[in-house]
Amino acid sequence: MEVEIKAKIENRENVENKLRELGAIFVGEETEEDIYFQHPSRNFALTDEALRIRNGKVLTYKGPKVDKDTKSREEIEVNIENGNKMREILKKLGFVPVAKVRKIRRIYKIGEVTVSIDHLDLLGDFVEIECIGEYSSSRHKVFQLATLLELREFIRKSYLELLIEKIGRIKDQGL
Amino acid sequence: MEVEIKAKIENRENVENKLRELGAIFVGEETEEDIYFQHPSRNFALTDEALRIRNGKVLTYKGPKVDKDTKSREEIEVNIENGNKMREILKKLGFVPVAKVRKIRRIYKIGEVTVSIDHLDLLGDFVEIECIGEYSSSRHKVFQLATLLELREFIRKSYLELLIEKIGRIKDQGL
Repeated sequence: MEVEIKAKIENRENVENKLRELGAIFVGEETEEDIYFQHPSRNFALTDEALRIRNGKVLTYKGPKVDKDTKSREEIEVNIENGNKMREILKKLGFVPVAKVRKIRRIYKIGEVTVSIDHLDLLGDFVEIECIGEYSSSRHKVFQLATLLELREFIRKSYLELLIEKIGRIKDQGL
Repeated sequence: MEVEIKAKIENRENVENKLRELGAIFVGEETEEDIYFQHPSRNFALTDEALRIRNGKVLTYKGPKVDKDTKSREEIEVNIENGNKMREILKKLGFVPVAKVRKIRRIYKIGEVTVSIDHLDLLGDFVEIECIGEYSSSRHKVFQLATLLELREFIRKSYLELLIEKIGRIKDQGL
């Protein structure tokens, strides 16, 4: 189980400074490009599931969120050798690529908790706090860190949902 | 495009002797275990498609056969790191594992043509002659070799279809 909360931030430098003060270790910066797919016979927006290919290398299924205040959900990932071929197979099976979500992610580790400072075009900056493991102890850890970072309002919507909200159904992304 | 024909054989030693006489090179013997999946909203038996995981390592989509006398069809394959996780993702997406097909395959190469001598429990021995490339020249090559091997009757059904024909809908395979 992946327990995860997300918050919008206005000043990413402030948040990163606080993280370092708390002893967080900077792991690295990466660009993540996700292609999201719609199911041939199920409305993922209603079932709260998602299927994506990240950076042409990982296929990920995300199950429905399991509680009312976090983004916690089951995640199954499998590494794939060729993202284009995976995409071709998914298309043949009736899955439709619906959106591309691109973000620059700066990753910090503090104990068992992973913190991502994300920048997305059109949407701005966000922090995601994540802990993988037993639900209630992971939940405790992520909210504890959120308090230390003075985060109060949490967003349960995915970047995909926020992006669709912002610019409507995504077209012309060359998918 | 994969151009492929298949025939039942009664005496595999005879066929293998003939292959060697024709200059075929023995490549090796392998065991292939395929898990086939049914689509959540499409009847693959009607659309003549297939989706399978081979040996926990390769995900393959097979499109409908493109002619009336061979098994030629589009094939898209992607290597995957973890067959169990791929299976879990497919199940979450509504794909149902319907059958396991296990065969011992002895592979020969003769020019651009690949010949497989397959043994399947319940079904017996078969030869598959395959050539990947431009359709009409590949077609010519596979039928030419079939003539040299004195094969006359060709089977367009997949092992999956033959197995289902033989023992009915497959249950209790622990899928």
